[in-house]
Amino acid sequence: MAVCDVIEQAARDCAASWGIAKVHSRPDPILKDAGIDAVFICTSTDTHAELIEAASSAGKQIFCEKPIALDLASIDRALAAVESAGVKLQIGFNRRFDPNFREARERIAAGDIGAPHLLRITSRDPAPPPIAYIEGSGGLFLDMTIHDFDMARYIMGDDVLEVYARGAVLVDPAIGEAGDVDTATVDLQFARGALGVIENSRQAVYGYDQRLEVLGGKGRVQVENPRPHTAMLSDLDGDHTPPLLPFFLERYGESFVAEAQAFVSAVLRDQDVPVSGRDARAPVVMAIAAKRSLDENRPVRLSEVE
Amino acid sequence: MAVCDVIEQAARDCAASWGIAKVHSRPDPILKDAGIDAVFICTSTDTHAELIEAASSAGKQIFCEKPIALDLASIDRALAAVESAGVKLQIGFNRRFDPNFREARERIAAGDIGAPHLLRITSRDPAPPPIAYIEGSGGLFLDMTIHDFDMARYIMGDDVLEVYARGAVLVDPAIGEAGDVDTATVDLQFARGALGVIENSRQAVYGYDQRLEVLGGKGRVQVENPRPHTAMLSDLDGDHTPPLLPFFLERYGESFVAEAQAFVSAVLRDQDVPVSGRDARAPVVMAIAAKRSLDENRPVRLSEVE
Amino acid sequence: MAVCDVIEQAARDCAASWGIAKVHSRPDPILKDAGIDAVFICTSTDTHAELIEAASSAGKQIFCEKPIALDLASIDRALAAVESAGVKLQIGFNRRFDPNFREARERIAAGDIGAPHLLRITSRDPAPPPIAYIEGSGGLFLDMTIHDFDMARYIMGDDVLEVYARGAVLVDPAIGEAGDVDTATVDLQFARGALGVIENSRQAVYGYDQRLEVLGGKGRVQVENPRPHTAMLSDLDGDHTPPLLPFFLERYGESFVAEAQAFVSAVLRDQDVPVSGRDARAPVVMAIAAKRSLDENRPVRLSEVE
Amino acid sequence: MAVCDVIEQAARDCAASWGIAKVHSRPDPILKDAGIDAVFICTSTDTHAELIEAASSAGKQIFCEKPIALDLASIDRALAAVESAGVKLQIGFNRRFDPNFREARERIAAGDIGAPHLLRITSRDPAPPPIAYIEGSGGLFLDMTIHDFDMARYIMGDDVLEVYARGAVLVDPAIGEAGDVDTATVDLQFARGALGVIENSRQAVYGYDQRLEVLGGKGRVQVENPRPHTAMLSDLDGDHTPPLLPFFLERYGESFVAEAQAFVSAVLRDQDVPVSGRDARAPVVMAIAAKRSLDENRPVRLSEVE
Repeated sequence: MAVCDVIEQAARDCAASWGIAKVHSRPDPILKDAGIDAVFICTSTDTHAELIEAASSAGKQIFCEKPIALDLASIDRALAAVESAGVKLQIGFNRRFDPNFREARERIAAGDIGAPHLLRITSRDPAPPPIAYIEGSGGLFLDMTIHDFDMARYIMGDDVLEVYARGAVLVDPAIGEAGDVDTATVDLQFARGALGVIENSRQAVYGYDQRLEVLGGKGRVQVENPRPHTAMLSDLDGDHTPPLLPFFLERYGESFVAEAQAFVSAVLRDQDVPVSGRDARAPVVMAIAAKRSLDENRPVRLSEVE
Repeated sequence: MAVCDVIEQAARDCAASWGIAKVHSRPDPILKDAGIDAVFICTSTDTHAELIEAASSAGKQIFCEKPIALDLASIDRALAAVESAGVKLQIGFNRRFDPNFREARERIAAGDIGAPHLLRITSRDPAPPPIAYIEGSGGLFLDMTIHDFDMARYIMGDDVLEVYARGAVLVDPAIGEAGDVDTATVDLQFARGALGVIENSRQAVYGYDQRLEVLGGKGRVQVENPRPHTAMLSDLDGDHTPPLLPFFLERYGESFVAEAQAFVSAVLRDQDVPVSGRDARAPVVMAIAAKRSLDENRPVRLSEVE
Repeated sequence: MAVCDVIEQAARDCAASWGIAKVHSRPDPILKDAGIDAVFICTSTDTHAELIEAASSAGKQIFCEKPIALDLASIDRALAAVESAGVKLQIGFNRRFDPNFREARERIAAGDIGAPHLLRITSRDPAPPPIAYIEGSGGLFLDMTIHDFDMARYIMGDDVLEVYARGAVLVDPAIGEAGDVDTATVDLQFARGALGVIENSRQAVYGYDQRLEVLGGKGRVQVENPRPHTAMLSDLDGDHTPPLLPFFLERYGESFVAEAQAFVSAVLRDQDVPVSGRDARAPVVMAIAAKRSLDENRPVRLSEVE
Repeated sequence: MAVCDVIEQAARDCAASWGIAKVHSRPDPILKDAGIDAVFICTSTDTHAELIEAASSAGKQIFCEKPIALDLASIDRALAAVESAGVKLQIGFNRRFDPNFREARERIAAGDIGAPHLLRITSRDPAPPPIAYIEGSGGLFLDMTIHDFDMARYIMGDDVLEVYARGAVLVDPAIGEAGDVDTATVDLQFARGALGVIENSRQAVYGYDQRLEVLGGKGRVQVENPRPHTAMLSDLDGDHTPPLLPFFLERYGESFVAEAQAFVSAVLRDQDVPVSGRDARAPVVMAIAAKRSLDENRPVRLSEVE
């Protein structure tokens, strides 16, 4: 129906590519357009909360990229606006729609591994982003681990009560100078008693590495990385397979489509969206707690930072 | 631009789904439409040759599903029509566009395994088709192995001189009563000296099984089956991964898109299509020779059936 | 008890290493030694038949390395001697005792894959032997494929009726000058209807490659190569695992021990040995038929060469 | 030369099996035997320190099972005795001799992955031991994780400065009643800056699970579990491989032989043993620190418990 971008030419190019009729450089015309039922908010994080509030007031159904905000007060205002307007809000935690992780979640939910005991998430970017990006990112936990915090809740079907984070600057000293870490581990204490570990790095030279494993009382489920192709070369040095997929667009391409379809379907059928406001808030709480844990080198309960 | 189907409702449904303006139940209006540059012939095999001739006369660029025909005379007439009309003809050997096999071909063509010595193609359907289909299929070699014959030439970059086929009825006696086999092996003698083996079955209960391996003087390349997902379940009985992808639409989905893009690109840039008329004809010759080999239980040179 | 070697120093060294009391350079003292119940004949192939006959006459239980002889007349004389003496004879087809192939055989025998339809054996040496060895080897089929012929019968629990062999000289022209081939495929027609293919090469630069796969009506079993270790290295170029085990001593080490234990156990308990005289003869028949098939380029029934 | 066991019949049976001449039920005769150069101490943990001191005084070279003791004072006395006697002492951290982990260590030491950034050790027993064993074990960290603490130091070639442990009772409440945990994660801070995580469980129903992975600046090395065999079964439900090896005797069999050979070789050549007294002590310090961390729910520096 309509596309908006503060850079008007970008909006025009997008509209041309996708056969979209209306082009705007400000959101108001979309919010006022009675023919538009739902909006996708894909702007920079600092604009999410305000746009959610405006879209709620306009009675639009809302899909918004993660996170709503980097502070809880803004998130809570946005969620309150959504609730009082009675609209739907789905947050773009796309990894929940990855067919590999989804399969693991379904196996666990079906009881195939018994009660979960131990979760491990391995999540490593192929290379660090530019320092300018790091500086505005809110730090590793809010920028990168936040996806893993959401995945932890999704895959375990449980909430986290306490975290302990350890971080290091091993990839690039400039990241340390920017006040961030590039390598981290975060321990998780789940409400039902299970333990968890997240391993992060800003740099895995062999490709974008996204795996997890859950041990339960009756078994285990693990999710390995998909590969760019299934050909293997063998020579005098042994067997060789290619680097992992380069980054999130290649690795999670299907999931971006699937989350949009799920949102559209929920709107059309007036059903609950599959990622709730509570799901939107919890990973931010975890990230804030992890940051405090790192700063103070002690385990931090989520209730401390709520 | 336009879609044609002898079942007019099917054509209408297709047009509606894809926003196609014109709908026909006979091909003539398309062939006479000066605004149409190219046609995709996706009808039953027995109509391919005639439609190629008609489209050639009309000066259309042609994509046609495999095979052109089950007899060489028809194929040769169609190829002659294409040549005299000076149009392009690309045959739908879609597996050449599978990214996994393509990677293997590129490694071999790049010399990474040295000169190829030995090819093995494992090609097994998940379940046999209905007997009515078998009866009209031209037999296993023309219906199923024909893809493997094409793959053999594609992956090795070489022609086959002689074949020896062995067949058996092990999956369903009704297939034997219909005059066909459901299990087969075909040996290949390549022009540059390499050997090859194709293994076929109409039934692999664990899913659609499509692999190959080439041994060369400096190494080997092998292509394994892609999986529906990368989750693995472990329990008291060990590790479990799911059945292979169900069938060709799931396994080769990307390749159907890629072959169409390659055809469109060749037409737009006036370049050679990536699957030539010679490529269209050779697998049929191989299939006819394999059938004679099976019937007479002896190796058959392709020159005998040309 | 005693060791014999025509090179007396070799016998002495062996005796010293293993704490063996008696050392001989001729077999007679062993055959006459009433304290010795059983002998292992591990000499060159051309001496096997004669030594089996002598050991049978002396009433010894016999383990003999494969094959008994390269011609059927000698084999038949040796087997007749064994039978008339009422002693046991176990032939050293050690691969039957490999735990990986054994597992496959047990799964098949237990009916886990239903009736077998299609066998594939991939059997490739890491590098060709010296030409002098090739010249005295009896050719690829009697020297190398003979193990695969035995494996085919063992794993399928069935006999072969007919073979078709194709060969090529692709690894080293000197092998061709010596009258042999270095690359081959052999088709097998089993008595109960199944088909089989053996792929051989004298040279797989990535290591000793020994795999097989059986497709059945209800499933499949495949045996992959064991690896020297389970460590994998990943870098900018992808994932890397080491070459396969170098050759048969590393790959089949356990099986040599297990076959000796099985022989000793059969002798001590007076039970049938697990590799019979019929098992000793059949692969030689298959190898002779394969050679004739290669020479005459036609399928050869085993009954032709019996 | 001689074997000693407080249960004399056990000593006699052992001597008979292995052809050992002398049998004792007390260690003194061995320690006084001038013909004996070296001893293996494989008794219960609470006797190790005293026996090391006695053997040192007797001038014997010593191999002792891990750990020397559960308290640092006893360890330090034993190490002091060894040092003042000038004898060798090798502690039985057998996993260092596992060829899979050894390969990983060699790749890291060779610089193939660059500087190590992140270690993960997954170490899970197949089933918990009897509660009586748990009660006398010193707890999970001293009994089970101690191997992983040693592996962490071995594989990284670095010391640990601080640990943070989290534990849970999820497998069997009786373990909790015995004052222990059955599921745990331990974070490690290495001296050179790298981070590490150990994941432990007393119960992995799919078999004895022993893996590790190290991410470095230039790559990664990971060690997977070896398998009991390489056969895979496929059926309508997918692909199936067997449970992992049952327990440490099967998984680490080779390493027990290799560590004994390394000790003998070091004694014969008068070289340093490959597992030093410092290596013996450090994992106990780590275990004590981990226990304190668990009890006090805070990170604990090793210097606190030294």
